[in-house]
Amino acid sequence: MITLTLDPKSKTPLYIQLYEGIKKLILEGALKENEKLPSKRSLSSHLKISVLTVENAYGQLIDEGYLRSKAGSGYYVEHLLPSLKDPKGEAAIAESPFKKSRHENRPSALRSAVCDFSTKGTDTASFPFSIWRSLSRQVLSRPAAQLLAPCPSGGTKELRTAIAGYLAAFRGLTVNPEQIVVGAGSEYLVGLIIQLLGRDLTYGIENPGYHKIASIFREHGVRCVGVPLDSCGACPEEEALPHVLHITPSHHFPTGICMPAGRRTSILSMMERRGGYVIEDDYDSEFRYKGQVIPTLAAMDQRGRVIYLSTFTKLLAPSIRISYMVLPPALLEEYQKRLSFYACTVPVFDQLTLAAFISEGYLERHVNRMKKLYKKKRDALVDALEGSALAPYLRIEGAEAGLHLLLKVENGMSEEELVKSAASLGVGLHGLSEYTLKNAPCPISKGATPCLVLGYNGITEEQIAKGVSLLEKAWIV
Amino acid sequence: MITLTLDPKSKTPLYIQLYEGIKKLILEGALKENEKLPSKRSLSSHLKISVLTVENAYGQLIDEGYLRSKAGSGYYVEHLLPSLKDPKGEAAIAESPFKKSRHENRPSALRSAVCDFSTKGTDTASFPFSIWRSLSRQVLSRPAAQLLAPCPSGGTKELRTAIAGYLAAFRGLTVNPEQIVVGAGSEYLVGLIIQLLGRDLTYGIENPGYHKIASIFREHGVRCVGVPLDSCGACPEEEALPHVLHITPSHHFPTGICMPAGRRTSILSMMERRGGYVIEDDYDSEFRYKGQVIPTLAAMDQRGRVIYLSTFTKLLAPSIRISYMVLPPALLEEYQKRLSFYACTVPVFDQLTLAAFISEGYLERHVNRMKKLYKKKRDALVDALEGSALAPYLRIEGAEAGLHLLLKVENGMSEEELVKSAASLGVGLHGLSEYTLKNAPCPISKGATPCLVLGYNGITEEQIAKGVSLLEKAWIV
Repeated sequence: MITLTLDPKSKTPLYIQLYEGIKKLILEGALKENEKLPSKRSLSSHLKISVLTVENAYGQLIDEGYLRSKAGSGYYVEHLLPSLKDPKGEAAIAESPFKKSRHENRPSALRSAVCDFSTKGTDTASFPFSIWRSLSRQVLSRPAAQLLAPCPSGGTKELRTAIAGYLAAFRGLTVNPEQIVVGAGSEYLVGLIIQLLGRDLTYGIENPGYHKIASIFREHGVRCVGVPLDSCGACPEEEALPHVLHITPSHHFPTGICMPAGRRTSILSMMERRGGYVIEDDYDSEFRYKGQVIPTLAAMDQRGRVIYLSTFTKLLAPSIRISYMVLPPALLEEYQKRLSFYACTVPVFDQLTLAAFISEGYLERHVNRMKKLYKKKRDALVDALEGSALAPYLRIEGAEAGLHLLLKVENGMSEEELVKSAASLGVGLHGLSEYTLKNAPCPISKGATPCLVLGYNGITEEQIAKGVSLLEKAWIV
Repeated sequence: MITLTLDPKSKTPLYIQLYEGIKKLILEGALKENEKLPSKRSLSSHLKISVLTVENAYGQLIDEGYLRSKAGSGYYVEHLLPSLKDPKGEAAIAESPFKKSRHENRPSALRSAVCDFSTKGTDTASFPFSIWRSLSRQVLSRPAAQLLAPCPSGGTKELRTAIAGYLAAFRGLTVNPEQIVVGAGSEYLVGLIIQLLGRDLTYGIENPGYHKIASIFREHGVRCVGVPLDSCGACPEEEALPHVLHITPSHHFPTGICMPAGRRTSILSMMERRGGYVIEDDYDSEFRYKGQVIPTLAAMDQRGRVIYLSTFTKLLAPSIRISYMVLPPALLEEYQKRLSFYACTVPVFDQLTLAAFISEGYLERHVNRMKKLYKKKRDALVDALEGSALAPYLRIEGAEAGLHLLLKVENGMSEEELVKSAASLGVGLHGLSEYTLKNAPCPISKGATPCLVLGYNGITEEQIAKGVSLLEKAWIV
């Protein structure tokens, strides 16, 4: 039986204490691959906690890929490919992946767009602009010398410290502020990464995946290959592993797949053998509506193979163009030697305003608020779809997190027909195949159910209802 | 005799009317190469204007390379290599180069740094921050939706329109605001240019020249060659002409050479035959202390071979990171097709504040004020040097414009010894050879007089006086 000391007086909920305890036992090898865990009921009576607490902890561990449940049989430790022990023999207990499972066990979840269901939007109407304005005014009142001085290439100390604090508190990622490089958007930072790592390398991206990354690689003239997905997310073969792999492990775009722990350790080990790097693009992991936020791959990385990339554009507003990356120590040294001649691309004023927004707790509050708001929209969309006359033809996937979901439609129409007929009634949405890499074998099999990507963050609940009722008209054959 | 109609009631000073009239006659071919112009006295009596007016106009035309003066003989039309007639047969009367001539006729002017005479500094203490702050507050009071909306890839309409107005009014450059691409610093824009033009090309930079440009080309992995200078500035050979040539024709960095009209037309014609592009980096042309501001190469360009690049960092403050480029129509089309997926890297808030700063006339006033202020510092530095015990060993060049000057020192010490002995007394300055390209033949001949680059914009007049008195101690042998 598992023996763990839980502290009912701790601020950390019991289920999270239990989840963390079991995860530690698995990562340290005390619980071995395929070992059966106690049933929920027996563990609950053993630890004198409720069955619900055990259920929540087990659920989270399943989501992250540490456990699997076998119907009618119980819970088993998953196969975690390579050892997560770091070279010093300490267990890497930091990170792990969630797996989305609203409608199926390990969904190759997808997402689409309705009425205009673009995945680009941000609900800027909900941005606490009065707070931002007031912080901006406070920053403007500081001495001119502070606002007009040049800033270090990586960003102001104030913002980097605030970001490091945010990463530690909300992403379980402990970094030195010096490792953070602030830049005017992730697109710019990807360009810097190419300069840092070199252009004689092969760059891999998920296929299907995020269009723009492929465009950036193309325009920088580096060799870019698509890496196929399976139900665990990016699935590179060791023989064909690119030197640099851009992935979205917490929440694959656009399918919503959360990469489980086993795949993560496998990719990290392959990359170590290859001497390559993973770019972990953590673009929207704050918005997870079930369980805890997914831990980062970077926190799992013991050998400096992960460049963590994130942005405030999705969290705040597209007009506030601030992203950042966290460089592992060896790359940081290389950056400082070769690339720190580049001036920081974000104005000091904006950096200081954001630093205040983060360190005074407004970002956390905003994220929590937006999470509720986006969940409401997500629910409105799911409810509208499930309550519509289309329901028998639909399957929703990837709705547990993020700002869009996938809709599989089996009404006899092709993906193209679905998109066109929706557009003819004024409903904008994209087909999943639009997210596949050009000039590469199509990763979607010919007989696959047509799949659409619906973003809901940029529109209102009323627009969602309207959009779904229009889809009913467009798609009932 | 030259016949021109001058309007004494016009707001344009008579000497500028005369200068423009003669320039037009030269560009249209009415005044031919080597043709002798009337003497100042005879033209003044013919046009019923003062001799001083003619002198000023002739002076400006000499500075720009349209006329040459022959001692004791008079004024002659310069050799303007290729015809400036555009394909439609209209004369290109827009642009022309100045030539610096404080201490010699066509100086290969240089500049250096004293006490800390770094060329990086900006006099931020003189920045009208209270106005900037007040404009910022006004912008902050606008509706949130306006400030939070995404902006076009090239920048907000407001800022692009303001920049186009500024270019027309102060740089004689008429462009469509759509041609302007705003970005977070010239370094970023040079990266975009490489993506736009391609990396299979050879990129040329002036040698000596601006370090950072070479670093950007290097880090982007494109082939970069140094183009030697002569007394007219960059002097590329047609056989070895790079596909893309980055130059600072209005005010070469760091020598201060202003490229004359003949060299400009020669480079434009070569580029046209080559099918290549000139990147005209107009980084500090506002600060010219003698005559008018130098017209741009872009305005001379009739065939879309010039990308005009400029920045507000030098004008305002390093922390306000806004630059822009003007793309010729064909490249604009290419940009929109291939690169407009990039989000604009400058926050909307900063763009709108700058737009207000420009369109409400504050930029013009600030530039005028800074010009006076920098001229005072320049004069203080020149006077201190000329009044020092070092004077017999010194020659100052390139002091007519910009934010630094060149100091040639003939006291028997080498450039390295001069820099080291100054540093030993706490005076920071750079040798000209520090601005030469690594891994290329050194463009400075072995027997050349040691030359230092002294920037004066980031320091006070007191520091200048102190610095020069320390140099006296360091360099008197």
